[in-house]
Amino acid sequence: MGTTQLETVPEPKYWHLKTVLSEALDQDFAVGEVLPNERELAARFGVARATLRQALEQLELEGRLQRRRGVGTTVAPPRVGVDVGGTRHGWPGESSDGWEAVGVTETLPPTAVLKLLGGAADQPVHTVRRTRVTHGQAVAAELLYVPAASVPGLPAIDAPAGPARARAVLRELQRLALDGQDRSVELGSARAEDAKELDRLPGAPVLVVTTRYFTAEGTTAVSVATYRADTCRLTFGDSGDVEITHEARVAS
Amino acid sequence: MGTTQLETVPEPKYWHLKTVLSEALDQDFAVGEVLPNERELAARFGVARATLRQALEQLELEGRLQRRRGVGTTVAPPRVGVDVGGTRHGWPGESSDGWEAVGVTETLPPTAVLKLLGGAADQPVHTVRRTRVTHGQAVAAELLYVPAASVPGLPAIDAPAGPARARAVLRELQRLALDGQDRSVELGSARAEDAKELDRLPGAPVLVVTTRYFTAEGTTAVSVATYRADTCRLTFGDSGDVEITHEARVAS
Repeated sequence: MGTTQLETVPEPKYWHLKTVLSEALDQDFAVGEVLPNERELAARFGVARATLRQALEQLELEGRLQRRRGVGTTVAPPRVGVDVGGTRHGWPGESSDGWEAVGVTETLPPTAVLKLLGGAADQPVHTVRRTRVTHGQAVAAELLYVPAASVPGLPAIDAPAGPARARAVLRELQRLALDGQDRSVELGSARAEDAKELDRLPGAPVLVVTTRYFTAEGTTAVSVATYRADTCRLTFGDSGDVEITHEARVAS
Repeated sequence: MGTTQLETVPEPKYWHLKTVLSEALDQDFAVGEVLPNERELAARFGVARATLRQALEQLELEGRLQRRRGVGTTVAPPRVGVDVGGTRHGWPGESSDGWEAVGVTETLPPTAVLKLLGGAADQPVHTVRRTRVTHGQAVAAELLYVPAASVPGLPAIDAPAGPARARAVLRELQRLALDGQDRSVELGSARAEDAKELDRLPGAPVLVVTTRYFTAEGTTAVSVATYRADTCRLTFGDSGDVEITHEARVAS
């Protein structure tokens, strides 16, 4: 910490600009305010457009700025803490956690999901699509993979692939005794369909949370949830209401 | 899932190129292999340099490619699962989890950390710096903030701010009864000093894990750990050995 240590590290130009811009955001701009365009900003700070763009990208990674289609670059509100459930165990859809089932299809799961499920490569599985809304904003999109063998009681297809049938799959899961679950979090880029749902451009950075659900039979379902990395802070653990913002790392 | 839904979404050029490149990586390149330079690649795929660069950035976000100083762009090995501890509680340094204490200084914590600690703004706290090494590679850098009031038994400064004193702070913490802890994960950009330690460029995407440690007295310490987002997959929960790679999301 402290400037002494920082000064011993060669600092790229965009990095210095980022610090200057960050202070300008604190002092001269309000949350939601639209920033001047790139040409104007580059001129104001006396830097090349490429340098400016790199600095803006940094601030976007840190959740300070948001780029929105048709609006431009705006000052972001503090990230929202979204509980991803630490010690609490439960089937998807069991608690009212803001997830909404939007539909279900039969698909061949991606290779890695297949490996977790231990299934056959040519066996389609029920794939429930859900969306999570927090404070009126879509924060995550999920694909929940459930092999037919996990929900043998599910009635044969009698309804279109809509929300009702998706909820039927969840209800069948909830009949089973959940032995445990584990999770992983990694960086990813938004697929086209998730991006659309989350109001982001395809390829935008996202946090990918993969959850494996176990019963006595083994892995019974796998969820792959894509969270907006710009607006979300994933929370785990006892209280779930940790009040931490980007400042925890950025400020000093 | 499936191509039908994808086709209804307008697909940017770089996104299509990313898919093509991803297949080429699977078929024509080995892990660790250096990619041809940008000009050559752009020519091979018949795209503009800017489009190529966007596609490469996507693949980097997804952990498929690594950009390394002085080496170029290489095909990345699968991400390494790093246990961040889900249900297990424990003080930092209590288990042999690959963390190494490198030093300790007295600093004024960032505003957000201060808020979590509930301390006074002008009160420096012990700031332990640790590095986490997995498979011989530095995967995370941590700052652990410990107010003097949390470790009253710590002897007055009698040693330089090196590893020995850092370990003394950890030992004092471990004497206390830990009531609980919670965590949050968010996207960030590597600060200059973390970047150096993690062998990344300043501003590279990182996963920031903030952990709050509680005793009966309230929040007793706060850790802010910066994980390499390119090589790490953070794991939580029961088993901690989830075998999930980027494929879980990317393939279809």
